[in-house]
Amino acid sequence: MLTKTTRLTLVDQVILQIEALIESGQWPVGKKIPAEPELVVELNVSRNTLREGVKALCHAGVLTTKQGDGTYVSSSSTLGAAIQRRIQKSSLLDTLEVRNALEQEAARLSAERRTEQDLEKLRFYQLECNSFAASLDIEKYAAADMKLHQTIVESTGNPMLIELYAHITEAIQESIMIYLRKKFSAVLPQNAHHPLVDAIVAQDAAAAARIVQQFMEQIKRDIEMEEI
Amino acid sequence: MLTKTTRLTLVDQVILQIEALIESGQWPVGKKIPAEPELVVELNVSRNTLREGVKALCHAGVLTTKQGDGTYVSSSSTLGAAIQRRIQKSSLLDTLEVRNALEQEAARLSAERRTEQDLEKLRFYQLECNSFAASLDIEKYAAADMKLHQTIVESTGNPMLIELYAHITEAIQESIMIYLRKKFSAVLPQNAHHPLVDAIVAQDAAAAARIVQQFMEQIKRDIEMEEI
Repeated sequence: MLTKTTRLTLVDQVILQIEALIESGQWPVGKKIPAEPELVVELNVSRNTLREGVKALCHAGVLTTKQGDGTYVSSSSTLGAAIQRRIQKSSLLDTLEVRNALEQEAARLSAERRTEQDLEKLRFYQLECNSFAASLDIEKYAAADMKLHQTIVESTGNPMLIELYAHITEAIQESIMIYLRKKFSAVLPQNAHHPLVDAIVAQDAAAAARIVQQFMEQIKRDIEMEEI
Repeated sequence: MLTKTTRLTLVDQVILQIEALIESGQWPVGKKIPAEPELVVELNVSRNTLREGVKALCHAGVLTTKQGDGTYVSSSSTLGAAIQRRIQKSSLLDTLEVRNALEQEAARLSAERRTEQDLEKLRFYQLECNSFAASLDIEKYAAADMKLHQTIVESTGNPMLIELYAHITEAIQESIMIYLRKKFSAVLPQNAHHPLVDAIVAQDAAAAARIVQQFMEQIKRDIEMEEI
């Protein structure tokens, strides 16, 4: 890998620097990036080199240039943008199966690795879900639900698993909202995550994975019955 | 999505056309792509547009330009190249956990969806593995082993799952060879896939997933004991 790094062109180095700014969160999605003259100084490159790098990131879907306005961050990473594009070509069911694969393994690993701090976060989002379910606030319920599942995946400590799961979830967020709105139009579920959180607390890896699998079977049945 | 397509720039269209040629297998990995004048005619674009598209694909890791020679296909897709780059930043264990997540779900889905033709292919690679194990041919054993696992994933019929699994496997192929050489230097396992293929034949989804999980646990123990 070292040999490879030294053979990087200036443009590739600019791309890596910009990717690092985005991946570290310094340039979040939606941010307008600094103007060309400023970036030329900051990254210490020529205007042509900078332009080629920015163009490549635009084609990759990471940046978006708005005519007469400026350039904005449109994805949190090159991998994220590539996954986003791949998912646009996939059915929702296929995408959910991939996400389920990651989530099931995450639940298993979480049961083995979760810290006390992870459990505190899980209990917090569990309470939030129940409270928003009681007040029938579907937007907030969905946000807390997503945070709970994200916490499980994050407690695995596997950055690649966390990143893939986040990108896939982000790409189908809208479909998930449509599903929740259709399925739970009248009433939101209380204690939906109880068995899953219990299994993770009890460090029962097999049960945690099985419960995620059962969630998925239910969603599949709903899709097949054209409920979403 | 239709609105999005019509707003594509000419360069983005060139990129999509080249990606399609690569993904369809017309331009396989390793192939030298046609010279500029030929491509300008074939894709019906200006030289500058073509150049910008090719440059973007080079930065994405899909194409590689060799000075004074030409441009070659270096990855089978943009997603593949992005995964490859992500894996370079990941530990082998983290990568294996992600691959295991996909493979476990694949085994489960395979048990539900495999056709008679899939089973024939599985039995063929099973016989190949045994025959190369007997003759202690580790390279050919590894190739047949990989084909067997790939057949399982392909029998799910989920293109996204198949693609992600293939890219991840491709990226860690070398590490897998090192593992096999260390672990099986003296003797190669006979009937290693017997229980897995049996579970898929019997359409026992839970058993198939469990067997993949057990494979993974063994590899993890080997890594932790620094056997690879």
